[in-house]
This record gives sequence, structure tokens and C-alpha cells, in this order.
Amino acid sequence: MPSAMPDRFANGLTQADLAARLDRFAIETPSWGYADTGTRFGKFMQAAAASTIEEKFADAGQVHRLTGCCPTVALHVLWDFAHDERGNLVGGAGEAAAKVSAAAKTCGVRVGSINPNTFQDQRYKLGSVTNVDPAVRRVAIEHLLSSVKLAQATGSTLLSLWFADGTNYPGQGHIRERKRWMHEALGEVHEALAPGMKMLVEYKPFEPAFYHTDIADWGMAAAFARAAGARASVLIDTGHHLQGTNIEQLVAFLIDEELLGGFHFNDRKYADDDLTMGSIDPYQLFRIFAEIVMAERELGADLPIAYMIDQSHNIKPKIEAMIQTVMTAQEFFCKAMLVDFAAAQNARRKNDVVMAEAAWRDAFATDVRPFLGEYRCGKGLPADPLLAHRGSGYETKAAAERGGRGGRAGGTGSYA
Amino acid sequence: MPSAMPDRFANGLTQADLAARLDRFAIETPSWGYADTGTRFGKFMQAAAASTIEEKFADAGQVHRLTGCCPTVALHVLWDFAHDERGNLVGGAGEAAAKVSAAAKTCGVRVGSINPNTFQDQRYKLGSVTNVDPAVRRVAIEHLLSSVKLAQATGSTLLSLWFADGTNYPGQGHIRERKRWMHEALGEVHEALAPGMKMLVEYKPFEPAFYHTDIADWGMAAAFARAAGARASVLIDTGHHLQGTNIEQLVAFLIDEELLGGFHFNDRKYADDDLTMGSIDPYQLFRIFAEIVMAERELGADLPIAYMIDQSHNIKPKIEAMIQTVMTAQEFFCKAMLVDFAAAQNARRKNDVVMAEAAWRDAFATDVRPFLGEYRCGKGLPADPLLAHRGSGYETKAAAERGGRGGRAGGTGSYA
Amino acid sequence: MPSAMPDRFANGLTQADLAARLDRFAIETPSWGYADTGTRFGKFMQAAAASTIEEKFADAGQVHRLTGCCPTVALHVLWDFAHDERGNLVGGAGEAAAKVSAAAKTCGVRVGSINPNTFQDQRYKLGSVTNVDPAVRRVAIEHLLSSVKLAQATGSTLLSLWFADGTNYPGQGHIRERKRWMHEALGEVHEALAPGMKMLVEYKPFEPAFYHTDIADWGMAAAFARAAGARASVLIDTGHHLQGTNIEQLVAFLIDEELLGGFHFNDRKYADDDLTMGSIDPYQLFRIFAEIVMAERELGADLPIAYMIDQSHNIKPKIEAMIQTVMTAQEFFCKAMLVDFAAAQNARRKNDVVMAEAAWRDAFATDVRPFLGEYRCGKGLPADPLLAHRGSGYETKAAAERGGRGGRAGGTGSYA
Amino acid sequence: MPSAMPDRFANGLTQADLAARLDRFAIETPSWGYADTGTRFGKFMQAAAASTIEEKFADAGQVHRLTGCCPTVALHVLWDFAHDERGNLVGGAGEAAAKVSAAAKTCGVRVGSINPNTFQDQRYKLGSVTNVDPAVRRVAIEHLLSSVKLAQATGSTLLSLWFADGTNYPGQGHIRERKRWMHEALGEVHEALAPGMKMLVEYKPFEPAFYHTDIADWGMAAAFARAAGARASVLIDTGHHLQGTNIEQLVAFLIDEELLGGFHFNDRKYADDDLTMGSIDPYQLFRIFAEIVMAERELGADLPIAYMIDQSHNIKPKIEAMIQTVMTAQEFFCKAMLVDFAAAQNARRKNDVVMAEAAWRDAFATDVRPFLGEYRCGKGLPADPLLAHRGSGYETKAAAERGGRGGRAGGTGSYA
Repeated sequence: MPSAMPDRFANGLTQADLAARLDRFAIETPSWGYADTGTRFGKFMQAAAASTIEEKFADAGQVHRLTGCCPTVALHVLWDFAHDERGNLVGGAGEAAAKVSAAAKTCGVRVGSINPNTFQDQRYKLGSVTNVDPAVRRVAIEHLLSSVKLAQATGSTLLSLWFADGTNYPGQGHIRERKRWMHEALGEVHEALAPGMKMLVEYKPFEPAFYHTDIADWGMAAAFARAAGARASVLIDTGHHLQGTNIEQLVAFLIDEELLGGFHFNDRKYADDDLTMGSIDPYQLFRIFAEIVMAERELGADLPIAYMIDQSHNIKPKIEAMIQTVMTAQEFFCKAMLVDFAAAQNARRKNDVVMAEAAWRDAFATDVRPFLGEYRCGKGLPADPLLAHRGSGYETKAAAERGGRGGRAGGTGSYA
Repeated sequence: MPSAMPDRFANGLTQADLAARLDRFAIETPSWGYADTGTRFGKFMQAAAASTIEEKFADAGQVHRLTGCCPTVALHVLWDFAHDERGNLVGGAGEAAAKVSAAAKTCGVRVGSINPNTFQDQRYKLGSVTNVDPAVRRVAIEHLLSSVKLAQATGSTLLSLWFADGTNYPGQGHIRERKRWMHEALGEVHEALAPGMKMLVEYKPFEPAFYHTDIADWGMAAAFARAAGARASVLIDTGHHLQGTNIEQLVAFLIDEELLGGFHFNDRKYADDDLTMGSIDPYQLFRIFAEIVMAERELGADLPIAYMIDQSHNIKPKIEAMIQTVMTAQEFFCKAMLVDFAAAQNARRKNDVVMAEAAWRDAFATDVRPFLGEYRCGKGLPADPLLAHRGSGYETKAAAERGGRGGRAGGTGSYA
Repeated sequence: MPSAMPDRFANGLTQADLAARLDRFAIETPSWGYADTGTRFGKFMQAAAASTIEEKFADAGQVHRLTGCCPTVALHVLWDFAHDERGNLVGGAGEAAAKVSAAAKTCGVRVGSINPNTFQDQRYKLGSVTNVDPAVRRVAIEHLLSSVKLAQATGSTLLSLWFADGTNYPGQGHIRERKRWMHEALGEVHEALAPGMKMLVEYKPFEPAFYHTDIADWGMAAAFARAAGARASVLIDTGHHLQGTNIEQLVAFLIDEELLGGFHFNDRKYADDDLTMGSIDPYQLFRIFAEIVMAERELGADLPIAYMIDQSHNIKPKIEAMIQTVMTAQEFFCKAMLVDFAAAQNARRKNDVVMAEAAWRDAFATDVRPFLGEYRCGKGLPADPLLAHRGSGYETKAAAERGGRGGRAGGTGSYA
Repeated sequence: MPSAMPDRFANGLTQADLAARLDRFAIETPSWGYADTGTRFGKFMQAAAASTIEEKFADAGQVHRLTGCCPTVALHVLWDFAHDERGNLVGGAGEAAAKVSAAAKTCGVRVGSINPNTFQDQRYKLGSVTNVDPAVRRVAIEHLLSSVKLAQATGSTLLSLWFADGTNYPGQGHIRERKRWMHEALGEVHEALAPGMKMLVEYKPFEPAFYHTDIADWGMAAAFARAAGARASVLIDTGHHLQGTNIEQLVAFLIDEELLGGFHFNDRKYADDDLTMGSIDPYQLFRIFAEIVMAERELGADLPIAYMIDQSHNIKPKIEAMIQTVMTAQEFFCKAMLVDFAAAQNARRKNDVVMAEAAWRDAFATDVRPFLGEYRCGKGLPADPLLAHRGSGYETKAAAERGGRGGRAGGTGSYA
């Protein structure tokens, strides 16, 4: 069957060029994205929602089976590993890790980034690593250190750190004192990283803290990462910015500073809305990828960036939303590869604003879905993973087996 | 003891003038503000949190006893009235109302506004009164009509309506179709209002809906209220606006359109943060009150506005936060009364921008706390209700008696 | 030559269907968009910028000649019609209009909307129709009434009203008093409208007023329009919203209220940035058009909406930017026509959020540029008007003839 | 006459303590703040506006004479020093500086920070130090180096750098390439700093660039300053932030990183509105000062921060607005000194959120205007400098002498 796409695109790349890079474009899905979740106004339960780690891996395995590009699963230490009453891992890191790794393997996936939790415990009400109480700070740091061990035991090389720490009222906290506690905690964790392991520092302007958040923006995350050590870098969650932020500029800036470690992908219109990637501002997503592709072209190598999804779907079926996001990531990464960077650079040299911009617009306007369909078929994958999932009966079967168990326990699932 | 304040303020008003208006400045506290609550990242439990309606009234009674200006309590139909498995009021509206009214009376307070809940039930996942399913819309409307009956039975004259209805994705909903369903629902409810009853229509730009909310701003709320009928007006929640909104202008505009029905007070820095009133932007609060006071002076009468608090505190002790908010409301309402409106108007007539503004600034800069202390003492109230509460041992006693029961059940309390 | 596009699109429409609606999709360009402009930090002059009305019409004619869909030109009363020292039209409305209409005809275009100017004169420093000085208000209203006459004399049926009126400081103005003056002015103008004429009321949250703007949002514009009379409606400038506003919802709401009169198109990332349409958020533009197309399908007729561009380019060559915008408007209007509304509605009825959204996403992802190229060729227009303009030598010729005259005078051109 | 204020404040400080720090709290006013300015919609001229450097110094001298705390004046190289046709300083740096310094001395003030201008020249249309053309970059850098010489010649120790550089469209610029050019330029300027001289790097999210600004936020400014060298630090303009930014946290963070060099004070509600300090959000201003005062208390010394005003008033009389701002700065700095930091810290140690916050709120609520009046009287200054200025007849005299000359030339004044 002849391809619906030209073999060579306008910018000179061939289908094979795109395919080659796409083969190395892996996306990590989060275990908590398969469990029931909600807003503070309530959770809407889904019968097929996962609640055990086995169910989460099964769902992640379904996504990987259909898309071929989601081999790893981000784990949440508190929700995915069994803890005893005192908050210790059942059986210690070794046993816990072995059990979880084996469960992953059964489903055809691997353990990805390890995500500690220092926000859920009641004692973290006024902060975890920036709590005024040294005992609480110690508990939080121990949890982080234990997560490093867990990562090592599961073969994960990535510790992904997000802190809810912050305050709700002016005067509530001593901002600089808390800053120094954050430095101390991150320094100690960095020191403890196993060989080959990296740590990512995430930032967020607000929620759940509503006056100040200890790591509020990329500049703070970069300062903390730089101070912690060479293996720390910044994690960009696309939903964690004030309105108007030029996210792709941050991407470019951090690449240039060699501090961009990874992404948490999702989309939003207002705050940290956790919608499916590209559902609100697809051009922004394209521009983010364009900065990455451009830098890789100049470098002649892939950038060491971890592409991860962080979405918790309350309205859409979770697996469908995840597949949709993965397909969107591929679609817009492909579009970004179609930018004629040389033409843009040439236009800039001639002060031709319209044509420099056109390089972006033309690539964005190109419909790459036919190419992606062929690419997937060529790898023995369904051309449309979403429809394939719908046709598979997986959701119905899961709903029947799980029967809304997810929402009940509230234990190992996901966000409260 | 001589007063710390002059008997006559700079704008010619006497302490007696202020006191007279203050005597008629009542603030309603919400039952759900005394129960455990949280963010989607979890609830931080408070040992003294209320969980039963009796405990909520007790707490509201404590606030009223100390401040003297919070005689009514807003009730939440779903959380404060007993329902059976099928969602019907236990014993019907009459019995349910009688039980609750009696409980209120015991604590020295009365039932205030009645707040239906059409967002928590699983069937409202894709909308309540704007759901595509007529059966769901009917359930929602019936709940509203039943709330009207409940209001009538409790002697409440105010139905306070907030709808979470909206969508998360472009294309998910048919915006105009939903708009018409909203008109239908509000029209039917208006029709059913008992004599002397009013209904308030609240708006909110986002959360829990993240793409579009059916009543997203004051303009929509006003259009819906106008269409519903003469006894419908707009409720302004100070936390429900996009960044940059000039809230006091909306207040002025709605006053002029005779459509301002009431407030839900709280403060925020980012989104709907639900912080204590005036904690982030006290000058904005002052400006809101200044518009009201100015209009009342011109009118020669009080405006029929319901002043209500809508805050759910997760970090601060709930009763303390409520008392702090009430004291803040009085403080800034007093400052607003000190504006020299005549001087401002005179300056405007002379194009004197600096002096017109100075009328606002000078009133705001005046420290009215001494006056308020004296005012309270004169009424047999503690000069500082917050310190009085701290000294009363109420919190400790409640904590001992309630012992964190609040968080456990998750039933009648408050937000999920 | 066989078409690059299928004859029938996924939603059942044929190329002929698209073409038929496109034939009726006219876009008005603004005279001031061809003149030098800038930011408050300065103007960057362009040698080819127009400064006389003849040059502006010539440029607008070039855009219409190449795109075939821009037959009318919005005029700015102060900048495009000769005034004497006292601010009166030279020769009166009749003569002034005749001169301008003739100039337009020469260039193959017609006079479109008439835009009064009540913000530039020094006496409007503290407001025009909401100035505290009745004499200033009278001057402003007279200018509006004279603009009505001018519209009548030129055959224009559209009076387009934007007011810069507002204040910079709390207390500076009496918001409700100013509101009533606005009502009076708009009422008087509506009364004076010639038969068949309509007036549009534009809103803007800020700039040049930085505390409050008298017509700050769509809700105020709608209230003013409704009060003024049946021939007044709302003008949406896509750059005049607070961050996060769901503009397409306003479009839908106003359509349902029969109050949507027209658009000023442009794009922005931050404030009122006046960038080329669709350059920042193309999906939003698509969604706006989708609401319109959907409503027209249901109605079985075109909506009476005036599509106008309001952009003042400082960086891009002005004619190029205008052509780019027109092409973008056609591209995204076409995409909107490809939405499968029936499929979306069907999915909604089944609570299938993913597929309802997919109707929007799929249409947006479709590359309609080949169809548009063919459509233009079929009408004897260049397939790519932008490249055709570049090839025409128009810019070079204009630059040589005009030689940067535009920036010099600062008289009749455009924004200061 | 007995003082209206207690000799010892609630936090233990005496009036003498406040006075001592206030004596060292100097505020720099900007030369361009005395000249006519406007928005892109036009300038509103003031008859008394300054246009020559002598007039600007005279106005600044009036402000200093009445407030006693504004001994220095920020100068704008392009607007305040005479340049020949080719953009070179008339007579070279030495002569130009001598002339200007003498003029300052005559008016009782001194030359403060030196502000280069790399945004106004037509060749900077697509960037100055980040322009793709090396020749343009060289011109811009030479202007910066010449500004260093000028600073040295005038005895100024502060080079204040703001760059308008950025782009309006995605793809228009190569963000990382531009970043490196910025590094090069700042490095070269830092290298050239005279002994004892410091350079400040300002940031701004948008305007006049509307897609990306090369130095868009504090994180970028800090990265550039750090890379440039030890004498570079960050300048915070309070109006240069996205909505919701917690500015006082940035202040605290930069103090801790030893990178806070200075402020440009003004206030805003929406974008970079350039309103008088504290006119919109006075509590934010207080919180900024509270972070500084707290750090100074801990350090036992004043922080080396340059307090400068950057406001261009279009509506208020310029000198009045400047005096109002200076008085506001003193008022809120005083309030900040009244915070009981020890009580706050003590409350934090006890997890007492309400009382930690109360330390901020109580200080803010205290009316320090009587103290400031006495403080000024004690120094032989008018108790109310604004009223004193009004009574002085200065404005009337200046208007008569200058007669609106300011707006005419457009040459050396201020913003276009």
C-alpha cells in the first residue's frame, strides 16, 4: 500500500529519519494515573480503576502493548509499596522492590522513576523537609533516603522529587530559614544517590500551599538543584506555571544551562488542571518539542530528558486518556521534527520575521497522523491504539473484575 | 476611661454613627467551615473539628457569643440534614427542619442560607442541571426544589446556589444547550420560591470544571438571574475570579443593576484558595466595602446584601479563623465608613486625582482597632474575641470530646 | 490536476460545501493597520508604511486583490478623515465621506465600519463620555453623533465603539456615576443611528486605564448594549480578556443571547499584544469558529457577525501580516467546518467524553491548506497570497514612493 | 507637644530606633519621571512637565527638599545627556558628565544610577545585544561601555540595565543563541566596570516583546548576573511579574543568594502599569519590606540594596506622584519595622499559624503617619511634604515657565 505521506518531508527529513528518532522517544506513565482520583469537591469513581499495584501495572502494560513506547512506569512510594503501621516498607527495600519489580515484569513493563511522598502524612501539615520541627524534617529526609534505596533495589535510576511544602499566610513561615532547610535536605539526598542515579527537582507556584511554596518556580528549582550537586536537575511539570509563562523558553534556558532533567506532561487552562496533554494548548506543546528537537539537531545527539506523564483523570477513562496522551506526544514530537530549522535560521539572518515564524507554523499545520499510523503498523502495533483499546474489551473486563474497588479503600490508590 | 479614638472622625462621622451601622452588619458563618476539609492532596485533620450538625452549631454559637454579629449559620443540605439511602430527607422537610432549627436554637444561633449540593453525587460526574441526561437533570432539580421546602420549613429566606457544572475538554459539552438547561432549572426553582424567599446565583471561573464552567462569571450569573425572575440575584464569592479582575467594580455595577444579592467572603492569592478574609489583599476588601458604603450613603438606607463567609480551613484552627475573619470584616467595613466621600467627589469635580484617591487611602490607613475594641466592650463583648476564644478553653474541650472524629466518617462533614 | 484533498470530508461535507460558506466569509481590514505604530517604548518605522488614506486603501486593495475576501476597510474617524483645527470635519460629513469613498473605490475596496476616537484628545485625559465635566462629555457625544452621520454618508452600516474611559487609582472615579454617563451616551447614539445601521460596543479589561475601565468585560458591554437598544450588540476583541478567559464560551453565550455583533481579531500571549491572528493560540481560534459554525448549522443560516481585524504591526511588514491573518482566518474557519458536530453530539449523549472531544481534535488536526490553495485557484486568486505579495514587488515600490513618510508627521496615521 | 505615638512600639522598638534606620533609607527618583509620558494610545501633556535635564533636576530637588530622603537622581543616558547625530556624547563622557553633575549640584541633588538605552533606536527593532547582526550587537555594547565611562565620570557607582530584547512570534528568534549573546554582552560590561561600581540586571516578562523576552524573570536575571561576575546582581521592578507571583519570596530568595541589588518601585493591577507605589496592593509592599527588615535584623546591618522609583505618570502631576510614592515608601518601611519578628518566630516554633501571621497583620494595621509627621518635623522638614508642595506654588510656577514645552520636542524627555 502506498504511503499517504511523502517519503521526504519539506525540511528534507525522510520518514525513516522520523521513525529512527521516534523509536528512541519513550514516555513513562504514572501508576497513580490508573487509580481513582478527584478534586477537593469529590472523586468520581470508575469501575475499571486500578487499586493494587498489580492492576496498575496491568493497565500500564496495556498502554505499552498498544503504543510500543511506554516501557516504564513511575511509582509512588507511599501508594505503590506496602508500608506497615509505622510507615516502614514491609520487608525492607529489597523485598518490597523485588515484589514490585516482578509484578511489573509480568505485565511487560519496568519500574521507572521513584516518587517519594512527603505531603500526605498528618505530620506534614506545616511542612516536611521545611518543617520547623527537626524531628519532622528528619522523618521526611529518612523517607527520601529510603526511596533512594528503593530506587536502587528496583533498578530505577531516577528519583523524582516534588514538595508540597509552603505556607498559606504572610508571616506563617520564615522563607529564608525554610530555604536553608530545603538545601540541607536536598544535599543529603544527593549525597546518598546510588551510582548512576539522578534526582529531579520539581517546582510549582501554588497548591496545596496558597501563599508561598518553597520551590515555586524553575529559578528556585535550578538554584536548589545546582546547590545539591551535579546529578540534580530540574523537572518541568507543564501544568505548574503562572498564567502567561513562556514554558518553551524555560525549556531552552534549562537545556542551555544543562539543567533540564525531565517533564511531567499534562495540559491546563487555569491552574494545575491535569488534563490530557495537548488538549488545551497544542501549539505550546509543539513549541516545547521544537526547542528540544532543535537543540538535539545542533548537538547531534539526544538530550538526556525523562519524558513522563503526570495526569490523574477523573472524567475520562484512565487508560484511554493515557493512550490519547501518548499518541498526542508522538504526534507533536513528529510535527516538531518537521520544522525546517535551517530555513528559520536563514530567515532570522535576513530579519525575515514572517518566514522564520512560518517554519514553526508550517510544521505545526502538517497532518502527521497518517505517517504515525504507518509507523505503528510497521512495528506490528495498531495504527490507532485508542480504537484498538476500545475494541479490546479490556475496560469492560477490568470493570467487571475490579468493580469499583478502587475508590473504596483509599489506601494504596492515589491522591486522597 | 477616655477613648483612644476621636469622637468625630475626619469625615465627620461620630463613633455613634459607626456603631449604629455596625450594629446592623451581620455576618453569616458556614456550617461546613467548622468541619474537616482539605485539598485534593489530602485533609489535615483537627482534633476539635466538628462533624455533627450539633457540633457545628456549637462552634458557630461560640463565634456569635464572642463577636455578637454572627446570628445565622449557612447550612449545606447534603452535609447537615440527614438523608436516607435514596437521598431523601429523613422524616421529610418538616421533621428534618424542626430538628435542625431546634439544634441551632440551643446554641444561640439561627438557620441562615440553605445551600443545595448538586456536585457530590456520582451521577453528577458530567453535570447536574446541565447534564445531557434528562433524568439526572430532574434529580438535580428535585433536590433544589426540596431545598426550597427545607428553607421554608427552617424559616430561611435565602437559597444559595452554586453549580460545579461544566466540562473539562473542548467539544465535551454543547455550551448553548447546557445554557438553556441552566435557564430551565433556575426558572423552575424561582417559580417554586416561597413568599419572601430569594435565590442567589453564584459564579466561578473554574474548578472543579477545567475547560468551561456553565456559570463562569458575573455576567453569566446576572443573565441567568435576570431570566429566572425578580427574586434572583448574584452572589459574589471573592475567590471566584480570574487574576486581575476588579471585584469592587463588579460590586458597583451589580448594585447599580440592582442585582447584588450577597457575598461569600474569603481571600486568595492564586485561585479559589479559601484563605481568611483580608489575609492577602486587605485593600481590595476595603475597596469592596467602600463601594457598598458609598451606595448606602447615597441611598440613605442599607443595601439588601447577605454577607456570608465561605472558607474551609485546613491549616488554621477553624473557629479561630472564623473569628479572625469576622473581626477583619468589621475592621475593614469601619475603615470604609471613614472614607470622606464628599471630599472625594469634590476632588473629582476639580480633576484632582491625588486627593480623590487620598480619601480612600486615608481611611484605609486609619487604625480602627481601638474603636472596635471599645465598641465591643460597650456591648458586653470581649474587646478581642480571638484572645477571648483562646482563653476560653473551648478548643481544648472540643478536641477532647470530639477527638478527631470529624475526619473519620466523611459523611455529613464537608468537602470530600 | 487531481485535488490533494478528498472531495468529501470525514464529516460528510464536500469541498463545494466549504467553498460556498467560504465565499460568504468576508474579513474587514483596518486602515490603521497599514500605518506606523508602536509600543509606549517607541515606534519602529517601516519605509512602506502608509500615512495617507489613499495609501491605506491602496494597501487594503492589495490585500483584497490577493485574497479575494477583504472587500471593506474599517476607518478611524480621526486618522482617516480630514479635520480642521477645531476638530470639525473638513467640508462636513458629506464632502468628507464622498472624498474617502471615492478613494476607496479607486483601490477596489469599500468603506467598512466607522470607528470614532474619544481617547486621543488632551481633554479626554480623565475620560470622554464618562468625564466629570458635562462639556467634555458633550464634545465626545457630538463626535459620536458626527461619526454616525459620516457612516451614513459613506454607506457604512456599522458604528464600532471602543472607549478608553476608566481610572488609574481607587477613588479616582465614581464608578456608578460613570456607568450612568455611559448609559446616557450610548442611548443618545443609538437613538441617532440611521436606518439599517448597527452599533457595536467593545470591552477591554485594562490599558490605557489601569485601575478600572468603564466597559471592562463582556458582561458590562452586554448590559450597556441591551440598555442602549435593539441595534446595539457586543464586539469581541480577542486580545481584550484577562488570562484564562474562555473566549469561545463568551461567543456561545452571546450568540444565544443574540448579542454577538462582531470581532476584532488578533492574538496575544500576555495582554493586548496585537499579534497576528492565531500566532499564539491557534486552537483557541479554531474553537471560537467552531462555536459559530455549530450555531449556524443549527440555525440553517449565517450569523450576522462582522469579522474584523484589529492589529497594528510594529515588527512584521504590515501588508504581509494582514495577508497572513486573512489566510489564517480562512484556514481555521475551514477546520471548524470540518468538525463532525453530529458525531460530537452523539458521543455526548453516550457520555463519551473522549469521542466528543475527538470531533474537535480531528478537525483541528486536518491540514486544509491544500484545499484552500485549490479554492483560491478556482477563483483566479493566487494559491498562496503571501508569496504572491512577496513576488509582486508591491512592498519595494511602496517603500520607494513613501520613503518612511509615515512616521514623520504623526498626524493622521494611527496610534501615537 | 506630646507625641501622638507611644515612645516604644509593641515590638519593643523606640521611635529613635525607627528614626535611625529611616535616616539611612534613601530613595532615588528617576529623571524621566518628571517628563511627559504616556501609553501607546497617546501622551497627556502636563504644562509643568520637565523637558531639559535642568528642569528634571529642579523637580527632583523639590522632592528632596520636602522629603529629605531623595538625594540622588537616576539618569537615562539617551534622554539626559546630549548626543550628536551619530549617537556620540557631545564633548565626550568627561565634559557631558561634568555638565550634568554641576546641574544636579545646583539643585541640591546628585547623580544616581546610570541607565543606558538600547531599545529606542530604529536599529534595535529586532534586538540590541541579542540582535542577529554582530554590528548591531557591537553598537549596543559600545553604548553600554560608554555608559560605564559616563557613570565613572559622574561619580555614579551603579549601572542599571534593562533590555527590551525579545521576540513577538514563535520561531522568530533562536532563544539559546540569543541567551549566549546576552551572556557575552553582560560579561564584557562587567569586565569594564570601574572599581567600586556595580551593575544591576533587570527582568520583565513581556512588553515591548510579546512572545519571549530574553531576560524574562528573576531566575534568568540571576543566571545572567551570576555568570557575569561578582559585581552583578538582580534588580526587581515590582511591576515586572506575571499575575500571582509572590514577589516578597523572590526578595527573600535573592537576599539569601546575595543577589538582590536593587528595586524599581511602582505598583500595578494588571501589567507594567507604572502606578504610584502601594496604590493597588499596599500589603504586598509591606511584605516586601518585612523580608528586608527581617534579614537586616538577623544580619545586624543594612543590606546593600538600591531603592529606586521607576514610574512615569500620565494622569497624576509628576512631582506630586513622586512625593506620594516617597511618603508611601517611608510609611510601609516603618510598618515593616514594627513587625514583632521574635513573636512571629516564637509562634512558628509552636505551630501557631494565626499568631505568626498576626505579627505581620498587627504591624500593617498600625497607623504610623503621626510618627512620620513628627519624624519629619524633627528634621526641619514639613510634616506633610505633599501638602507643603501644594502650598509652595512650585507647580504653577513651573507650568508658567515651561508651558507645555515638554511634549513638543519629544527629544530628550522620556518614553516615546
